[in-house]
This record gives sequence, structure tokens and C-alpha cells, in this order.
Amino acid sequence: METGKIAIMGSGSWATAIAKMVLEKVPNITWYMRRTDAIESFKRLEHNPSYLTGVHFDIHRIHFTADINEAVRDNDTLIFVTPSPYLKSHLRKLKEKLSDKYIVTAIKGIVPDEDYVISEYFRQAYNIPDDHLAVIGGPSHAEEVALDRLTYLTIGSVSQEYAQAFASMLASSYVKTKTSDDIIGIEYASVLKNVYAIAAGICNGLKYGDNFQSVLMANAVQETDRFLRAVYPIPRNVYDSVYIGDLLVTGYSNFSRNRVFGTMIGKGYSVKSAQIEMEMIAEGYYGTACMKQLNKHFHVNMPILDAVYNILYERISPAIEIKLLTDSFR
Amino acid sequence: METGKIAIMGSGSWATAIAKMVLEKVPNITWYMRRTDAIESFKRLEHNPSYLTGVHFDIHRIHFTADINEAVRDNDTLIFVTPSPYLKSHLRKLKEKLSDKYIVTAIKGIVPDEDYVISEYFRQAYNIPDDHLAVIGGPSHAEEVALDRLTYLTIGSVSQEYAQAFASMLASSYVKTKTSDDIIGIEYASVLKNVYAIAAGICNGLKYGDNFQSVLMANAVQETDRFLRAVYPIPRNVYDSVYIGDLLVTGYSNFSRNRVFGTMIGKGYSVKSAQIEMEMIAEGYYGTACMKQLNKHFHVNMPILDAVYNILYERISPAIEIKLLTDSFR
Repeated sequence: METGKIAIMGSGSWATAIAKMVLEKVPNITWYMRRTDAIESFKRLEHNPSYLTGVHFDIHRIHFTADINEAVRDNDTLIFVTPSPYLKSHLRKLKEKLSDKYIVTAIKGIVPDEDYVISEYFRQAYNIPDDHLAVIGGPSHAEEVALDRLTYLTIGSVSQEYAQAFASMLASSYVKTKTSDDIIGIEYASVLKNVYAIAAGICNGLKYGDNFQSVLMANAVQETDRFLRAVYPIPRNVYDSVYIGDLLVTGYSNFSRNRVFGTMIGKGYSVKSAQIEMEMIAEGYYGTACMKQLNKHFHVNMPILDAVYNILYERISPAIEIKLLTDSFR
Repeated sequence: METGKIAIMGSGSWATAIAKMVLEKVPNITWYMRRTDAIESFKRLEHNPSYLTGVHFDIHRIHFTADINEAVRDNDTLIFVTPSPYLKSHLRKLKEKLSDKYIVTAIKGIVPDEDYVISEYFRQAYNIPDDHLAVIGGPSHAEEVALDRLTYLTIGSVSQEYAQAFASMLASSYVKTKTSDDIIGIEYASVLKNVYAIAAGICNGLKYGDNFQSVLMANAVQETDRFLRAVYPIPRNVYDSVYIGDLLVTGYSNFSRNRVFGTMIGKGYSVKSAQIEMEMIAEGYYGTACMKQLNKHFHVNMPILDAVYNILYERISPAIEIKLLTDSFR
């Protein structure tokens, strides 16, 4: 099986890293970006003007387009890598049919107002059959992919045939891939890890140390495991790198914007001033509200999620909320 | 149940942190140190002259002794915190009977030439009954205990009554404790985590990045789980902070001497020159050989342990050995 013609949908750092990986194996790609000025700069500079600027691209191998319909019409596999809060505004312009495409999501988030992970949203809203949906998961700072640093990715899909084809296409000297059938579990874990990275940042900002950070991460693994068992009870091992590795690379990284955002909150910044200061969105901020909402259906015991939610949305003092959290830990 | 009169056996940083914790609750302790000059300096300075020098002690509450027999004779609970390679040389001077004492080990290591974890060694060589043996486990940089940073410890013992008594005695405003019956599992996990911290250091020295570090840690959790299931198959959850938290706090810490040692090896230092440069023992160096030897009986699949062993003891190039390791990971 082949993955067919490939389009990258999105222009951020992870989109850029994925384009780099795909172009190691595939002669030509389509790359959809919303802004034509970004496309013009990209062509002129031969690198993404805003992200991973050290990665040179052979622009003759890339067909850029700001027209989502063109990108969809001319390709077989669409890799969505837009931030989750903007996904719906991109798709609003769509007139072409999606249902015969392969949709691969590399978005780590939940569709706002829908309370769906991305693959589930495509399945429900666009009638994409299960075996045409896949997810790219795994511990992966885009910055390290840019530097050819060894990275392990997991491709999740109900169709093991397609997962295998996509995994083979993505593998290279610095990328190792494997497959999984746990598409939903991988997506939820990747949303939750951003919440836990915010929690790690908050504790860091409050001057909790490494001893506590490791206890927080251990409890985050347990909380993830509990949630996934409730929401999608298939056999899985949360020790697998796609779950625990992804949590650790984010929770321990000072480059994670979620952790940086949390650190500012822990130090006493308001949510608004932290967002202004960072000039970017910490995806876990939205993920926290979505997961909190979603968990109303499942009633899973999630003290870390609850604490982060109370701090970010209920304006409860981080010091008080984290103190309570520490009492709930074992 | 009470823990009785308490002696700390050892003078390093973890011994000093434990003395600080015990003295939060207990009026007086005995503190055995081998060197009388260290005792004299300690009394004069009112802090340990070599470790955690910022922690002030009320020396009137400490009975110092360089005589192991006196320390054993006059106390009920003996907390052993010497480095494992020196344990036998301390005990060689022992004439007093140990078998009616409570032996608590806070040594993270294996007794050289015996291939026993510490509690097992005391059981076999000194006929200590199972219900008089306990272990202190958990993610705990001594430096953070010194700073009153929140730390979670787990007391493992076959006797839940004694574990509970000791755990209560150790708990304070900055120390939370719980109990476990998995004394052997906690000890092996604490030996293995030093091996994995060396592995993390080697990969760091070889310029592998954070993406790979998280995959290494995920695989280390799995390797620990496999080994513990083989060597001591009781119900346990390796997500518990005493296992995974202890691994993470060491594997992600730049203060871990095991990780620092590994980093030097990864950068190309020989074992000998790394040891000279560090002026201290990386306990995981001995732990690696002991675990390798021990695993000959169990035949558990332990690729990380094998790789570290080959690098440290068989002089195989770190670059080659880690490259092979990366191929074994999922």
C-alpha cells in the first residue's frame, strides 16, 4: 500500500518538521499555508520564515498553496498540523470532498466547542471512515527533528496497512517509526501531556523541586492511564514511548511553551498577562478546558487536571491549589 | 508500635538528609561515622563538614560515634546509608549481635561479590528476620531535603506495622511518606535507576537529544518492570513514584553523579579518567556489574543494562553500543 500524494496542512514548527521528514522520502509535496505573504517569504528565503529557520528546503519540490480546496483536491494523504483552535476556521473554506482522503492528524489538541479529539472530529463531521484516519504521535520536539536528532514516532490507525505505509514513508536515518491501533488513546494522551506540562511549570514557578516534579510526572502517568482506560478501553501499555515518552519530553522541557506558560502562572502572572508576554498560545490552556468538560461524562479521578483547571479558569491561587494537590498524591 | 532509638550509619549527603528528617521528630539520635576527624569537624562547625553544609544541626541532640559496636548496641533501629561498596568493610568490625535490631537500608546498591540487594544481604548474612528489615525508597535528591523542598518517600517492609511506624516518624511538613510491602522490588529499582542514569548521561554525552532521552526513559521503565516481575513477582505498579519517580529524578538530573559520570563516558573519557575527574564514586558503575551478573540467573531482556555494561566493562565504543541500543527500542 502507498500513502499517495501528500499535502501538509499548516505552517508552524511541527508542520515544518513533518515536511522535512516527508521530503526525505517523497519527491514532491503540497504545502498549504493560510497566508500568501508567508508563502512568498518561504520561497524567497528557502526556509520557513518563522519556524525552524535553520532547515533549508528545496522549494522546487514543494507546491505551496493558500487554497485549502486545491490542497485537498490534488492529494491523497492530508497531514493536518494546524493549532487545534484554528482547525475549524481553516475547514470552513473547504468545498472539496474529504471522505475519500486519508486524514493524518499531527495536531495535539481537541476541537474547541466539539469536545472531540481531532480524528474523531473528522470522522463525525466529515464522514471519514475509520480506516482512512491516522495520527502521528511520539516524543518529538520539532527543533530536534530540525537538527536530525534521533526521534521515535508512532503512527496510530485502525488500518494497520495504512499505518505501516505511512510509518515506512516517514522513517529515515534520524526517524524511527512504529505503528499502533490506539489512535484515540494516542490523541488523548497528547492533549493531556500539555496539561501536565502546565502543571509542571506551575510547580516550578512555585519553587517546588525536582523530587516533587518526578512525583508529579509519576502521578500524571497514572492519571493518563486511568483516563484512557475509561474513555477507550483497549489493551495498551502506557509505558510505551508514545504515551510516557511524550509526557516526559514535554514535562521536563524548558522549551515547552506549555511548561513556560505554567511557570509564569506559578510565579503569579495572570493568564492574560502570561499570554501577552509569551506572544503565543500554549495549547494546553485550551486542552485543559476541553479535557475538564469531557471528563464530566467520564468522572475519572483526575486531580492534576482539576488543579490546573481551577488555577487557569477559576482563578484559585496556584499556591493553595497545588498544596491541595500534593495532599492527594501518593 | 515505635521505632525505638535510632542510629544513622554513614556520613554522606543522603545520611545527612536522613538525620535532618529524623531529628524533626525524634529528640536524640546516634550518628555513626567512620572517621573521628569528620566527627570533630562536625561538632565544631555544627554541620556536616563535607555534605549539605547549609544544614545546621543541634549537636547536643546527636551522639556521634566512630565505633560501630557502640552504635549498634545502644540503639533499636539502625539506618544504613553507607555506599554499598564499603558496607562490608564497616560490618567487618561488628561484634554486637544484629539479629534483634531493626535494619533500615537507605543504600541504593548491591553488596559487591554477593549479588544481593542490601536487605537480602542482612537477612542472609546476619539472620535478620524479614519483619525487622525495611527500606527507604523514593525520588529524593538529598540537596532538596536540605532545602525543605517537598519530598515523597516510601517505606518498604514485610512488616506493615514497622513500615507504618517508621513512615510516621519520618513524615514532616516537607516529607510525605507511604508504605509498601515490596522491599526487594524497591531496592532493585533503586539500583537499576543508577544504571539508567549512566545510560542517560552517555546518550547526552553523545549528543542525543531530549526526544531520545524520553524514549530511553520509557524503555528503562519497561526494563525495570520486566526485571522486577522476574526476580520478585508480587503485584506492584511501576508507575508508583517509588519506582518511576526515582528513575526520573535521577535520569533527568544534572546533579546526579551517575548521569554526570555517564556524560563523561559518552564524551570519550575512559572510566578511570572519569572517576579521577569526578573525585567520587558513581554508584551505578558498581551497580551495572552487579545487575549484569545477577541477570545471568534470570535471563531478562535488558538491552540498556547490557549496553551500559559493554561500554563500562568491555570497552566497547559508546557510539557503537548506543547505536545498537537505539535499534532495539520501540
